[in-house]
Amino acid sequence: MSKLEEKKLSGVEYYRNSFLHIHEDDVLLPDGGQSKRIVVTHVGAVNIIALTAEKELLLVRQYRYPLGVETIETPAGKLEADEAPTVTAKRELEEETGYTCEALVQLGTHATAPGFTNEVLHQFLATGVTKLDVAVSGDEDEFTELLTISKDQALRMVKNGEIFDLKTVYAIQYLTLAGLW
Amino acid sequence: MSKLEEKKLSGVEYYRNSFLHIHEDDVLLPDGGQSKRIVVTHVGAVNIIALTAEKELLLVRQYRYPLGVETIETPAGKLEADEAPTVTAKRELEEETGYTCEALVQLGTHATAPGFTNEVLHQFLATGVTKLDVAVSGDEDEFTELLTISKDQALRMVKNGEIFDLKTVYAIQYLTLAGLW
Repeated sequence: MSKLEEKKLSGVEYYRNSFLHIHEDDVLLPDGGQSKRIVVTHVGAVNIIALTAEKELLLVRQYRYPLGVETIETPAGKLEADEAPTVTAKRELEEETGYTCEALVQLGTHATAPGFTNEVLHQFLATGVTKLDVAVSGDEDEFTELLTISKDQALRMVKNGEIFDLKTVYAIQYLTLAGLW
Repeated sequence: MSKLEEKKLSGVEYYRNSFLHIHEDDVLLPDGGQSKRIVVTHVGAVNIIALTAEKELLLVRQYRYPLGVETIETPAGKLEADEAPTVTAKRELEEETGYTCEALVQLGTHATAPGFTNEVLHQFLATGVTKLDVAVSGDEDEFTELLTISKDQALRMVKNGEIFDLKTVYAIQYLTLAGLW
């Protein structure tokens, strides 16, 4: 046990669906004290950074019910059971944007909100991005619109807050630092 | 109602504590169908990007119970009721690092995981960062260790996965793109 570690004493489950469950644990703190920790256990997700041949970033406009607003985000999606993250990433790219790719390069696996969830995002850079001849249909309860933007537009939309989703800001920073657009 | 909007029909609360509550709603979809949405309603948080006079980034090592591992992150914390984000940011910087700052510049407000939570992070750049003469004590159930790293170390630790918290990756990319270190 590291000197910062917290150890589970007991737990209560409050909710469970197909992609997350929520429990609260009593934990033993490093100094011998006790506290409670709420945990949203999540299946994990993928984020896809995809530039068209014209160096435009593929983005998706959608309604985000938890926020109560429309957002503009990189294509992304939850992992399905027993599905490799690259498979999820290619499927989500195709379903959400109507584009496909030749390859996916994994850039990292990042925790989104480690204070209360174990959700991680597998970050992928898509290469060889081309438009599909025929659209692929996705989840029946997801409604999205495609958007493609240039580097200048992207930087302006981050600055003025039109783009405020953290994984999308990461994607735009990544492309800029890597000199890919 | 925008053409992507989802409208609440009914809801059930599953859990509530001092900084989040969890409910599942039945919603009306844009095509007239129905679905369920789980929502973690969160008070919001701050993230503080602070460089020492030697251009080293202030970071905090801590045990993240939801992930079950120690992480290395920028100082951050949840908003308290009726507290302005700048006040939270200065307090968390002082408590978690033993440093203070002259000013805080807001860089943006970002959604961390909009698929299931409304949590937003108020992103701050601290300026005029100096060490406090006397340490300030923080939350009694939080145990942290200070770490200061150079730009080269930071870029290496993001690449090799030692730093994998998304808000910290954002901070490192921000400082690099802005030419601040």
